[in-house]
Amino acid sequence: MKVIVDLCIVPIGVGVSISAYVAACEKILTQAGLTVQLHANGTNIEGDWDRVFAAVKLCHEKIHEMGAPRIFTTMHVGTRTDREQTMADKIKSVQAKMLK
Amino acid sequence: MKVIVDLCIVPIGVGVSISAYVAACEKILTQAGLTVQLHANGTNIEGDWDRVFAAVKLCHEKIHEMGAPRIFTTMHVGTRTDREQTMADKIKSVQAKMLK
Amino acid sequence: MKVIVDLCIVPIGVGVSISAYVAACEKILTQAGLTVQLHANGTNIEGDWDRVFAAVKLCHEKIHEMGAPRIFTTMHVGTRTDREQTMADKIKSVQAKMLK
Amino acid sequence: MKVIVDLCIVPIGVGVSISAYVAACEKILTQAGLTVQLHANGTNIEGDWDRVFAAVKLCHEKIHEMGAPRIFTTMHVGTRTDREQTMADKIKSVQAKMLK
Repeated sequence: MKVIVDLCIVPIGVGVSISAYVAACEKILTQAGLTVQLHANGTNIEGDWDRVFAAVKLCHEKIHEMGAPRIFTTMHVGTRTDREQTMADKIKSVQAKMLK
Repeated sequence: MKVIVDLCIVPIGVGVSISAYVAACEKILTQAGLTVQLHANGTNIEGDWDRVFAAVKLCHEKIHEMGAPRIFTTMHVGTRTDREQTMADKIKSVQAKMLK
Repeated sequence: MKVIVDLCIVPIGVGVSISAYVAACEKILTQAGLTVQLHANGTNIEGDWDRVFAAVKLCHEKIHEMGAPRIFTTMHVGTRTDREQTMADKIKSVQAKMLK
Repeated sequence: MKVIVDLCIVPIGVGVSISAYVAACEKILTQAGLTVQLHANGTNIEGDWDRVFAAVKLCHEKIHEMGAPRIFTTMHVGTRTDREQTMADKIKSVQAKMLK
């Protein structure tokens, strides 16, 4: 099952700057062979369900290893069976409608 | 790794009434042996990371089987290494602070 | 416009314990005359759109006043025009389907 | 108060294709003078708290007018008092850490 995920990981208890933790996750997600797109409020990920969620688990484990005692993550998880759709397709579809 | 999750599954393309789909997920989560608490905007779940996410995948598979062509799910995922904490602990902790 | 919201406010930069901040928000929401239900991963709120969002803004202001330099909030926001529905209705609707 | 928001609006009861509704919101947000960045799972918005939330309300009103009987929206809402930070700053901060 293919999934498109928006992942936002917030380590708690490590102060206000969290970019080093997010960067560590970006590396994990990319090394997992997933399609990854960083944006201002999270990271969009496209791939096989099991591979995506295995990588998210690795992110939690890594951030705890880096010293964060608590993690608060939010995810949007989209699946569909009616047709194939990539992250790029989703953006194009909205942009095409904006021209009308 | 223990996780506390807030799960909100929204099937798309099946009309405005989605309670039958949520109910099917409640059964899956309960049968998975997880601690489950339905609330007005989702379902709180407490359990082992792998078991929780395996059950969430079953929910997506079941809802597609029931006829939903598209699913939009949001999750809050909390882990911590500093101490054990249950969902009941979280509520009690806030309520205790409200009395002060 | 009536709205049902799930609010989860996470202050960042104040350590791992955030229950005192959540408790302060519960008081603000209740004093605003809104229907409020605390759960393990957030707070469900029912009320008029403008009153709900005004109260959420007060929560952010209050938490910053209490010393949090950064706040990360997630919200689920539901509106519908087809019929009246309360938070209690939503739960009952799922529970009724679970009995079938 | 300045806010950075991630907005994901899902109309329910209008079938599986929702891009026309998202496109209508993009126009509203842009016309409101906000900094707006569409991504694969939502729209990042930067601006004054009141102006951002007024625009989000207009989006809900517009989508109901377009015929959606129900809307499910998720938002990430970030505020900070320690320093000014733009959406572009957030991305640069993570990217800088990834090079290390």
